[in-house]
Amino acid sequence: MTSTPNLEYAKTATKHWHRVQENTPLIHCVTNTVTKQIMANVLLAGGAAPAMVEGTTEAPLFSGIASALLINVGTFTAAESQLMLPCAKAAAQAGKPWVLDPVAVGPLPDRTRLAAELLAYKPAIIRGNASEILGLSQAAGGPGESSGRGVESGDEVEVAIEAANFLAEHCGATIAISGPIDLITDGKTTVRCANGVPMLTKVTGAGCALGAYLAAFTATNESPLWSAASAHASYGIAAEQAATHSAGPGSFAQNLLDELYNLSPAKIEKEAKLW
Amino acid sequence: MTSTPNLEYAKTATKHWHRVQENTPLIHCVTNTVTKQIMANVLLAGGAAPAMVEGTTEAPLFSGIASALLINVGTFTAAESQLMLPCAKAAAQAGKPWVLDPVAVGPLPDRTRLAAELLAYKPAIIRGNASEILGLSQAAGGPGESSGRGVESGDEVEVAIEAANFLAEHCGATIAISGPIDLITDGKTTVRCANGVPMLTKVTGAGCALGAYLAAFTATNESPLWSAASAHASYGIAAEQAATHSAGPGSFAQNLLDELYNLSPAKIEKEAKLW
Amino acid sequence: MTSTPNLEYAKTATKHWHRVQENTPLIHCVTNTVTKQIMANVLLAGGAAPAMVEGTTEAPLFSGIASALLINVGTFTAAESQLMLPCAKAAAQAGKPWVLDPVAVGPLPDRTRLAAELLAYKPAIIRGNASEILGLSQAAGGPGESSGRGVESGDEVEVAIEAANFLAEHCGATIAISGPIDLITDGKTTVRCANGVPMLTKVTGAGCALGAYLAAFTATNESPLWSAASAHASYGIAAEQAATHSAGPGSFAQNLLDELYNLSPAKIEKEAKLW
Repeated sequence: MTSTPNLEYAKTATKHWHRVQENTPLIHCVTNTVTKQIMANVLLAGGAAPAMVEGTTEAPLFSGIASALLINVGTFTAAESQLMLPCAKAAAQAGKPWVLDPVAVGPLPDRTRLAAELLAYKPAIIRGNASEILGLSQAAGGPGESSGRGVESGDEVEVAIEAANFLAEHCGATIAISGPIDLITDGKTTVRCANGVPMLTKVTGAGCALGAYLAAFTATNESPLWSAASAHASYGIAAEQAATHSAGPGSFAQNLLDELYNLSPAKIEKEAKLW
Repeated sequence: MTSTPNLEYAKTATKHWHRVQENTPLIHCVTNTVTKQIMANVLLAGGAAPAMVEGTTEAPLFSGIASALLINVGTFTAAESQLMLPCAKAAAQAGKPWVLDPVAVGPLPDRTRLAAELLAYKPAIIRGNASEILGLSQAAGGPGESSGRGVESGDEVEVAIEAANFLAEHCGATIAISGPIDLITDGKTTVRCANGVPMLTKVTGAGCALGAYLAAFTATNESPLWSAASAHASYGIAAEQAATHSAGPGSFAQNLLDELYNLSPAKIEKEAKLW
Repeated sequence: MTSTPNLEYAKTATKHWHRVQENTPLIHCVTNTVTKQIMANVLLAGGAAPAMVEGTTEAPLFSGIASALLINVGTFTAAESQLMLPCAKAAAQAGKPWVLDPVAVGPLPDRTRLAAELLAYKPAIIRGNASEILGLSQAAGGPGESSGRGVESGDEVEVAIEAANFLAEHCGATIAISGPIDLITDGKTTVRCANGVPMLTKVTGAGCALGAYLAAFTATNESPLWSAASAHASYGIAAEQAATHSAGPGSFAQNLLDELYNLSPAKIEKEAKLW
């Protein structure tokens, strides 16, 4: 299903990436306990600044101050759940954009309920694999049916379009679905991105970190749709460059950080596969 | 105490490793807060899929669904302790094998009590250094005496044989003791493994990740004893290959992941030092 | 503001580094949830042994046994706060030195209160950026005024001298302020260190890990002031060596560990920029 890359879209991605570099947005990450280190390192390499503030009082305070918020429910616990709702609320009230990553939503009941509740605070972007988007849509009363098991996606990206459109309309969000070809839609415009490599699935947190990277783009750019498309393309290009000189997932993870750090407008404009 | 490698054992290791690659087992890790990232990455590089589900309700649910469970008490807290018992119970009830890593058991009282309680749910494999096996045996009413301080093992592997035999009989488990020469026993058959390099002790979580790697082998193979022996050999071979081109523990950690990813039946059959 | 390196100081750093290697101090880290892995790896590469014991009962017990304690308030939560006070108390009562890293103290209220309370247990070394030292001083009734936002330092090192002198006197501690040129003072003697590279700010936990590295030096050497100066120089030299062959922050983080592992008295004596 690949198509000819759209050069205008590539130029848009370049501009959006550049604004992250100029502004060094401060991203508040309320996230799982497995992938905080790579997430923080991706933000630093990508031109942003991470902060994982987790105190009951401090966290919502910080969500209102930071440039954007990421919420990732990957290691849901009752304590985390009590933190995520006030943080999303504080971001919404302060007019700060936030990104929801509904990791493993669908088969696991408590995080599914929480993710559905979080939608009330209107995330700018919801990103996940097809299973997660289907699971979240179903929990919110939309179309569903997932075959997901944990964080691996058993569903093809295009199968989740209806669910994505439902969620986009339901909470006014942009939906970004990761897969061999990523699909990004706000319910009206749909963009596809073919950048990226399969090795990304062999590094824990590569997807979670993309969620934080999305937050950095939407913190510094007006359109969540084009922020998401630009972030997906930029991240995927860095991954492609890294894969050219990696012997396996260990060196790839490190090279991904190097390549994110070494991205340039010229590389993005040349390599973006958006249409 | 090295001996001539047994070629039949090497072929067994090759077969066991291959079954992990064919089945991509989903490993539920309830583990410490320091080494989750390397543990998840070792599982991914090694052909399995990690999931660190930690919610009070979700975690035991997931232990019954996953292919196998790892419990590592390395950063014991009261909350974790309340999670580990129901997870072990759920795995046992669902007939799923689970691995216990009794980190620093012996000198630290609360985790020692917890680890002893966990034995009621019949782990398939208990893996640790000699100090930890001695500490756990003692807590379960068997032979003990340890000189351990934290996670470093002050005891020689062979000193813990009696304790290992006690634990093997006490809970029907295979006991895998890490050291310069690893000792793996189910109380009847004893296998030794000389693969591995000292640099493994300079990378945090290299031992913890081996625990998860053991779970992947026992999830896809019938014999816990041969699963443990095969996993020790495979992991140690990857470490040996990594050490040939590492300048220190930083590059070694990354090369270890690359080499786990690039293992092959031919490499394992040629390099396994099991007898 | 660079000055001529003092050769006597460089020799002192060499001696202090050597004593860490000889003694492999066991460092208890009660620290944030983002940077535990790199912190443990820096300690291992640097010649020490890490242990992140976090149980309510076990942690204070362990603080009294370990060679030194590090407390880092980077991801303050109520539970952590209830752990840090007893650990600091236990270390103080056992006569073990401890290091306080007041991450993001100043703008965030709860951790600021906690950090000020912790001063009662007399840390041997307080290390942070200028904003954090200003924030902590102000919370303890001394001179303040900070422009910090999260963990980034908006203040120049030299602006915090008065606050550092106040804290040094207030709790008998050595204060180590990180920046382009680090400033280390016990209120009487002031040492500056120009080792290090800007890339350190692009790796999450590079500063947090330095806090643990300081603890390893003060565990094995008598003078907190010279321990801190020696640790800053050694760490900065490893960073400089790493930067010579790194393509970005990913490879730099790994090379930093390799270079810490490969430090030698000759390298430190030649490269230390202390005066």
